[in-house]
This record gives sequence, C-alpha cells and structure tokens, in this order.
Amino acid sequence: MNIKITGIGYYLPDTIETAKELSEKIGKSEEWIISRTGVKERRVSDIDVDGMGALAAKKALDTVDGTPDLILNASGVGKQVIPDTSVFFQKELGFDGIPSFSVHATCLSFLIALNVASNFIQQETYKKILIISSDRGTRGRNYNEPESAALLGDAAAAIVVEKANDNESSVLLDFSMNTWPSGSHLTEVRGGGTNLHPHDEKTTFDDNLFSMNGPMIYKMARKTVYQQIQKDLNKHHLTVNDIDVLIPHQASGLAVKAYSKFGGFDESRVVNIISSTGNCVAASIPLALAIAYEKNMFKRNDLLYFVGTGAGLSVASVLLRY
Amino acid sequence: MNIKITGIGYYLPDTIETAKELSEKIGKSEEWIISRTGVKERRVSDIDVDGMGALAAKKALDTVDGTPDLILNASGVGKQVIPDTSVFFQKELGFDGIPSFSVHATCLSFLIALNVASNFIQQETYKKILIISSDRGTRGRNYNEPESAALLGDAAAAIVVEKANDNESSVLLDFSMNTWPSGSHLTEVRGGGTNLHPHDEKTTFDDNLFSMNGPMIYKMARKTVYQQIQKDLNKHHLTVNDIDVLIPHQASGLAVKAYSKFGGFDESRVVNIISSTGNCVAASIPLALAIAYEKNMFKRNDLLYFVGTGAGLSVASVLLRY
Repeated sequence: MNIKITGIGYYLPDTIETAKELSEKIGKSEEWIISRTGVKERRVSDIDVDGMGALAAKKALDTVDGTPDLILNASGVGKQVIPDTSVFFQKELGFDGIPSFSVHATCLSFLIALNVASNFIQQETYKKILIISSDRGTRGRNYNEPESAALLGDAAAAIVVEKANDNESSVLLDFSMNTWPSGSHLTEVRGGGTNLHPHDEKTTFDDNLFSMNGPMIYKMARKTVYQQIQKDLNKHHLTVNDIDVLIPHQASGLAVKAYSKFGGFDESRVVNIISSTGNCVAASIPLALAIAYEKNMFKRNDLLYFVGTGAGLSVASVLLRY
Repeated sequence: MNIKITGIGYYLPDTIETAKELSEKIGKSEEWIISRTGVKERRVSDIDVDGMGALAAKKALDTVDGTPDLILNASGVGKQVIPDTSVFFQKELGFDGIPSFSVHATCLSFLIALNVASNFIQQETYKKILIISSDRGTRGRNYNEPESAALLGDAAAAIVVEKANDNESSVLLDFSMNTWPSGSHLTEVRGGGTNLHPHDEKTTFDDNLFSMNGPMIYKMARKTVYQQIQKDLNKHHLTVNDIDVLIPHQASGLAVKAYSKFGGFDESRVVNIISSTGNCVAASIPLALAIAYEKNMFKRNDLLYFVGTGAGLSVASVLLRY
C-alpha cells in the first residue's frame, strides 16, 4: 500500500521519576528495579492523555499542509469509558467535524491503526490521517506488583499518514497479527468495564490496576515473535541486515535486548529507549519511531520493521519502506 | 467496495424488564417511561458481554464456511480495560490465533467496523471478517437520571463480511462520519479511564454511570442527521423511496420516529425495535439489522441505509446494497 508518513511528533512529560525515587514506593531497591526491568527512569504526566496526545499531534502536524480528514486514537487506555478518546484529542486540537474513532489492541494499537489507515488511504476513503497514541501507564501502577509497576511510564506520540506519490517508494509492505486468548490473563486491567464494574462489591482495589505476568509473557512471546520475524523476512526475501531500523515495542529491557541477543539484529539498529522512558503502553512504538527519527537513525526510503506484543496475547508486525 | 454480508446473528437475553418493573427503581411511572423513551421493555443479561457476543457470533457463523480470519469487536463498553473485548470473544468462541482488535466510537462502533472491514476486504488484507457488537447498557444505568436509565437495554449482534463475487451486486456504496467534540459532554461515562480513575477521591458514584442529555442531543443531532441523509441521497441520485430498509440507531423512540415524521421515510421501511429492546448502545444497529433480516424485511440486492448518532457527538451513515 503506497502510503507515506508525512509527520512525526512526540510528547514526554517534564517530570522524571528515577528508579531511586520509585524504589521507596514499591519496596524494592534501585538496583532491583534496573536489573529486573531495564528502566532507569520514566516520565510522569500531570496532564491527561488527551492533552498529552494533542501536544504530540501538533508536532506531527507541523510538517503537514492542511488538516487531517480522520483522527484515529490508538492508545492502550482511554481518558474515560465514553466517548472514546479520539473525540477529546480533536477537542484539544481545536478541530471540529473531523471523523474520529479509536482502535484498541492495547500495546499494539498503533500498528493496528497504521494498517487501518493504510487500507483507508489505498482505497481513498481518507487522504490525511492523524494517528495518536497517548498513555498514562503510571495511573494504573500497582505498587504491590513491583515488577510491572516499575515498567510503566507516560508518553504520547503521533504520526500523519498520506498517500505516496507515484514517483515515491514509500510503502507499507506488510502487516501481520495473531491473537492467542490463552494468554488473555497475562496482561490485564480487569476492572473498568462491564465485568468488574467500579461499583461491584466483588471488584477489588487490584482489579482497577495493571497486572502483568512478565516472565510468562516473555516465555510465550519470545518464540512467537521470533517465528513472526522469520516469516516476515522470508516472505520478502530479506535478512536481518536488510532492515535499516527495527522499532520494537518497549515491553521490558529484556524483551528489547532479545532482538539483538537472539533475533540477530545488530544492536545499533534496534531502537532502545526503555531505560529512559519505561514501557509507555501503546505510545511505546510510535515514541520509539519519533525518537529514532529525531536522532536521524533513518531517512526516506529506509526499511523500517516494527514488531511487538500486546495484551491478548497478540503479536503484530509492520514492514514499511519509509 | 464489493463486500457481502454472509452471516447475521443476534442474542437477546431471556430476562425481560418491563417499564412497570423499572418504574419502581427510578421513581417514575410506567406511563412516564414509555412516553419519554418509547421503551416498553428491555432485556437484562446475567452473562457478560463476551458470552453474549459469542452467542450472537455463533449464529452469524452458522451460514458461513470456515473460520473468520479477523475478529472485530465493535461495542460501546468493554468487558474490562485491557485486554480489549475482541480477545474475550475469540476465547468464548473457542478459536485461537485469529487476529483480533476493537474499534470504538460508542453507538456507531458497528458502522465504523463495517467500513474498516470493507476496506480490508477490498484490499484483500482479510477475507472473512467477524464483527461483533455486544453491550450491557443496564450495567451502567444511573437510577438518579431516569430518562437515560429507562432507555438502556442489553443485546449482542454479529455479522460476517466477505468479498462479493464478480457476478454479485452486493456492495458498500458509501460511508460517512463526522464528529463534533462540542457535544462530547452530552453522552458520557466519565469514569473508568485515566481521567477519573476508580481510585481517585474526586471520582463520584455518578462518574461511573451513563449520563446523557437526551433533549440536547436530539436538538443537535436532528439537523445534522437530516443533512447527512440529504447529502447521501443526493450524492447517489436517490430519493427516500429508493431505500428498501432504513436501519437507524435505536437512540430513543423519538429519534427513531423522526426518520418517518421528518425524514420522509415510509414508516414500514424504518426498522423500529426500541419499544421491546431499548437503546442497546453499539449493539442497536446490528440488532436492528438482524431482526429485520429475521422478519424478511429485506432480501439480497436490496438497498439498505444505516444511520445514527453516537457519543462525540458523531453522526455516521452507511449505504449498502445487501
């Protein structure tokens, strides 16, 4: 699909929380946090997801002519149950009348939105699509579950997707996703919906907070992610060295390192921001893209490969010529 | 886009709650409820949205060969914050490995999903897409807001979308959507997300329940919906009499009647199920489709027109040759 990313922006809150500062809250040492999660510090936002997302979107729109004709929210957790967060992004951006909706696949929402947007653009359903991922993972931290609490951070990132011209080589080459509900209990916020409603007597304090079985996900995901990578590379007759930049979900320090340690990708080509941002849920992948862009890690026509896991358990990947 | 609905199913819980039964809970008379909302009775589910959705999906899959290659959740409110409900639908259906995600635009989620699915099928991204809308609106009723509490009911409905063959005339002719965030406060569940988290001291009991300013929505929506209908009909050189069946969101008795009273559609062609089901949030539109299908209100090649409003405030429409 002949699509082109024409704008990229991100927002990181000013407030930094170090592993040392967090250590007191979760009853673990600074060293424990860093060795177990790879997160030395994360950002903590005092503005909500809609404000954060709008700040990222404004930067993404800086390099784009005109206004978007579709706004897609691709976050992990919404501002509120209804309306969906895309409406609040549009409100914060000062737009009116632009179709807006959300796609949701937790940490993979951005890749899903990129695929949906590419299909729309190829079909000429929409021409200029703004995708925003904004998550305040620190709002859902459970201090009684130190490992997941130490992973999460706040961030927002946004891109604009348009049609590539005939003389341009920008293209979404492939998208893949698989979901295995046998892993649905491995990453959860069990409350907040119809099952364990906030008013239910049986809803516990922990039900409203993030819960993750990191070791089990890593065990289940490493194999499936590795297979997905091999499948994608083989299908397009590529080797790891043909990928200019690998942009993985920043699930954990261990998970990001596995791409070079076991996946065969040169460490210099793997975007690794987790030590300074933590796992920013759905914002992690576009944030990694935006920071790699800012650092000039890639240029027009380079081959980018996005891959990650999300609650479900799902695995998704995107192969994109930028 | 040459797509065809190949399966349709719905699920209505057995338990009926009449206006009289509800009247005691909300302190209004049976007559008040029926005259204000048009809802004589609604269903109340004791199984959760995933179980309801799977029951509807099984019926939709009855007429379809093979398994879907994508499962789209198109509901208003999820089972829980994460994972998204599509994962739980897949789990209840006993599938494994099928890509699954959610689209969310509250009451319009089904129309959005139908458009997303059509783009996917036209691009051959997926071939057999299962769309499920399942909502338990009665879980979010606020008895202190009698009008909205009297509107909501529980239901699930599902369809399967596939490519139409060259010799078939089934086609999605048009999709339109607009979102006006100036109406974002008119329909809300303010809690359950990052803004008013269940643990926040400032989160009130009412924040976790459905809130709607019906009269203001009706005022804001009637004009925009009417304009949307005129635009769609004019664009395709159609009159109201060319539409075989109008399938509106069952927002309220008044809203459904407005299509014949002010919109010019013959009452016999407007699917009106609200008196026996209430407003079933995102399940309302596919439920109206499924019940009209069961009643033989339309046949292959008929022209169906879907239109509705959703929290946002959004208006969306789909013109489909069945």
